Amino acid sequence: MRVQMPTKTLAEALGHVERVVPSRSSNPGLSLLRLDLEPERLVLSGSSLDLDIRARVEADVQGEGSAAVPAAVVGQVVRSLPSDTVELAFGDFDLEISSGGFSTRLQLVAAGNAPEVHFTGTFDGGIDARDLASALEHVRYAAAVADYQAVFRGVRLELHDGRTRAVATDGFRLASYHTDVSTGLDADLLLPARSVDEVVRLLGDGTAAMALAAGQVTVDNGPYTVNVKLMEGTFPDYERVIPKAFPVSMEVGADALAQAVTRVAVMADKSANHRVDLFVKDGVATITAEGSYGRAQEALEVRQAGTEDEISLAFNAKYLSDAVAPVRGDLRLRFSGSTTPSVVDDLADPAYLAMVVPLRTG
Amino acid sequence: MRVQMPTKTLAEALGHVERVVPSRSSNPGLSLLRLDLEPERLVLSGSSLDLDIRARVEADVQGEGSAAVPAAVVGQVVRSLPSDTVELAFGDFDLEISSGGFSTRLQLVAAGNAPEVHFTGTFDGGIDARDLASALEHVRYAAAVADYQAVFRGVRLELHDGRTRAVATDGFRLASYHTDVSTGLDADLLLPARSVDEVVRLLGDGTAAMALAAGQVTVDNGPYTVNVKLMEGTFPDYERVIPKAFPVSMEVGADALAQAVTRVAVMADKSANHRVDLFVKDGVATITAEGSYGRAQEALEVRQAGTEDEISLAFNAKYLSDAVAPVRGDLRLRFSGSTTPSVVDDLADPAYLAMVVPLRTG
Repeated sequence: MRVQMPTKTLAEALGHVERVVPSRSSNPGLSLLRLDLEPERLVLSGSSLDLDIRARVEADVQGEGSAAVPAAVVGQVVRSLPSDTVELAFGDFDLEISSGGFSTRLQLVAAGNAPEVHFTGTFDGGIDARDLASALEHVRYAAAVADYQAVFRGVRLELHDGRTRAVATDGFRLASYHTDVSTGLDADLLLPARSVDEVVRLLGDGTAAMALAAGQVTVDNGPYTVNVKLMEGTFPDYERVIPKAFPVSMEVGADALAQAVTRVAVMADKSANHRVDLFVKDGVATITAEGSYGRAQEALEVRQAGTEDEISLAFNAKYLSDAVAPVRGDLRLRFSGSTTPSVVDDLADPAYLAMVVPLRTG
Repeated sequence: MRVQMPTKTLAEALGHVERVVPSRSSNPGLSLLRLDLEPERLVLSGSSLDLDIRARVEADVQGEGSAAVPAAVVGQVVRSLPSDTVELAFGDFDLEISSGGFSTRLQLVAAGNAPEVHFTGTFDGGIDARDLASALEHVRYAAAVADYQAVFRGVRLELHDGRTRAVATDGFRLASYHTDVSTGLDADLLLPARSVDEVVRLLGDGTAAMALAAGQVTVDNGPYTVNVKLMEGTFPDYERVIPKAFPVSMEVGADALAQAVTRVAVMADKSANHRVDLFVKDGVATITAEGSYGRAQEALEVRQAGTEDEISLAFNAKYLSDAVAPVRGDLRLRFSGSTTPSVVDDLADPAYLAMVVPLRTG
C-alpha cells in the first residue's frame, strides 16, 4: 500500500478533516483519522459525533486497504513537509511519510478503531454550493452561544419548492436569508451553528448535493462529504414577530454606520449591554454612548423617510454591528418603534433581512 | 488648552505609551497617561515602574498646561477615529476628543495623580539607533523566562571604548552581538528583557542618545525617550564557557536547517525537552527525533570540515531553532564535542555568535 500525491492537496484535505476530529477525546478512537486507499483516490475520514467528514482526493495509489492514525499528528507533519510531493508507504505497523530529504514513521492503528462514517443517503436534493454558503454565512451570527436554550444555538434551513431560507435567532435578534431557489427537498432542518461553520468552509464551486436521512443531512460538494447531525426542538414562529409598520426609516452606508457604532461604543459600559443610543431626525442619525469614563457621540447624514419626524431608541452595540456586517453597500434601517424590533435590509440584496430588538431604556 | 494634529501621529505615539502603561494596577495613578501641552508639541508620558516612556509629537497647540486620563481608554478611542485629523479640547473637568462627525468627552484627572517621569540625565553617549536595535534583537531570545534566576532574565549591554556588545543567556544557551562601535560611555548594564523589547520597538532612524544615572539608563531617539530601570546582580563570566576547539563543523543555509529541525521535532516528546538528534558525517547532517507517536528523520547536505570525521549529539529543538533564527543566509555550526557547547556563527555577519549546550543523552 503506497500513495503519491501533491503535498498541497493532502495538506488542504487534512486541514478540513483535522478541524472536525477532536485532538483529545475520552474515546481515543474519536481522535483518529481513517485512511482508505481506493483506485486513484485517497479517502480521509473522521468524526466529531456532531459532524462526520470525508475527503476523497486524487492520488497515485498502489494497493488497497485501510488504516488509522492520530489526526492531529499527521496534520502537523504534512503541513511542514519540504517538497511539493509526498509519499505515504503503509507497513504492517507503521505509516512512513516521505517528502524530499524528510521521512517520518507513525505507528498505525487498525482502521476498525476509528469511527465508522457512512454516507449512504440518496442525493435527491441539490443547490448551487455558493448559494448555500451565502445563505448560511448571512445568518450564522444570530445564533446563540452556549448559555441559551438549545434551539437558539442552531441554524434553521427551510427547504421547500421554490424557496430556500436560512434563519437564526437568539431571541434578541434574528437574521434571515431567503432565496427563490429550489433544492428538490421538502423539509425544515435545524443544524448546530458550529457544524454550519464547517459546512460553509468546505463549500466550493458547483452543486452541493443533499441527502436526508433519519436525524441527519448529508452534503456533498467537490472532494468533501459531510453528515450533519440535526438538532431537535421547535424553532420559534419568527415570522410573527417581524413588524409590519415602520413610522421612521433611514438609508446609509453599512460601513459608515458600523464604524460609527464601534467608535461610540468604546465609551459604553459592558455591564450595561454595550448600550448605544440612536436619535434620528432631520436626515441626521446621532449615535451616543455614556459610561464610567465619559461620553461619545457621532452624527451621520442619512436619507430619512417615514410618517413620523423622529425616533429615539437604544441598541446593544454588538447586536447592531452584527446585523449590519453582512451588508457590503448601503442598507435601510427601519424602525417600528422605540421598544419594538428594528429591521435591517440590504439595498443591493433583498434576500437578507435582520431584526434587532432595542434595549429597554425606561 | 487645545491641540490639533494628524490622527495617525497621535495614534502611533499612544500605541507605544499604552503598551508600557498597565491597563489595571493596584495603584490607579499608574494606569494614567499624562498629557503636557508645550509650544508646538504634545507630550505624552507614562510608566510601568520598570520603564518610563515619553513621546513628544509635533502638534498645533493653543495654551499650556497638563492633565491626565486613563491610557487604555484614550488609545481605544484614538485608534478608531473617522477623520485624518483630531482635536483635543481640555475643559476644567473633561477632555473632548473630536474627529469628523465624532466626539467624545473623557473625565480628566489632575496631572499630579499620574506618575512623574523625569528624563534629566546628561546624554554623554550615543549610537546609531539601528545598530542598537540590531544588537538587542539578535540576543533577546536567549534571556530566560520568569522561572529562572533574575540575572538570566536580563540582557547585558557592555559599553566600552571601541566595543558595544549585547549578551543574553539562560544558562543553557547564550547569544552575543559584538560590534566595534563606541557609544562614548563606559559601563556594563543589565536591562530587563521585557524593557528591551519595548526599546527595540521604539528605536527608529538617526542617533539614539544615551544617559546614565543611578540605577537607570535613558535612551532618546526621535520623538521617544525611555528610562530603563537597570537590574542588579552579577552576570555570569560567559566568555569562559565558550569553547575554543571544534573538531567538527558544518556550513548550511540557516533557513534549511531551521525548517528541517521544526519538521523533525513534530515527533519529539515535549516531556523530553523536544529532543532532536544530530549526526554529521560525510557531508550529510541527519536530524532525527523519536516520541510516542513514532519517529522522523531528515538528511541535509552540508559543507563539513574539521579534524574528526563525524559527531553525534542531541539538542532541545527549540534552542537550536532560536539560535539559528537571527541568521538570514548561511551559518556555520561548530561542535566542540557531544556533551560540550556548540556554536552558531552567521557567515555574513561576524557580530553574531550563539552557543547551545547539547542535551545529556546518556
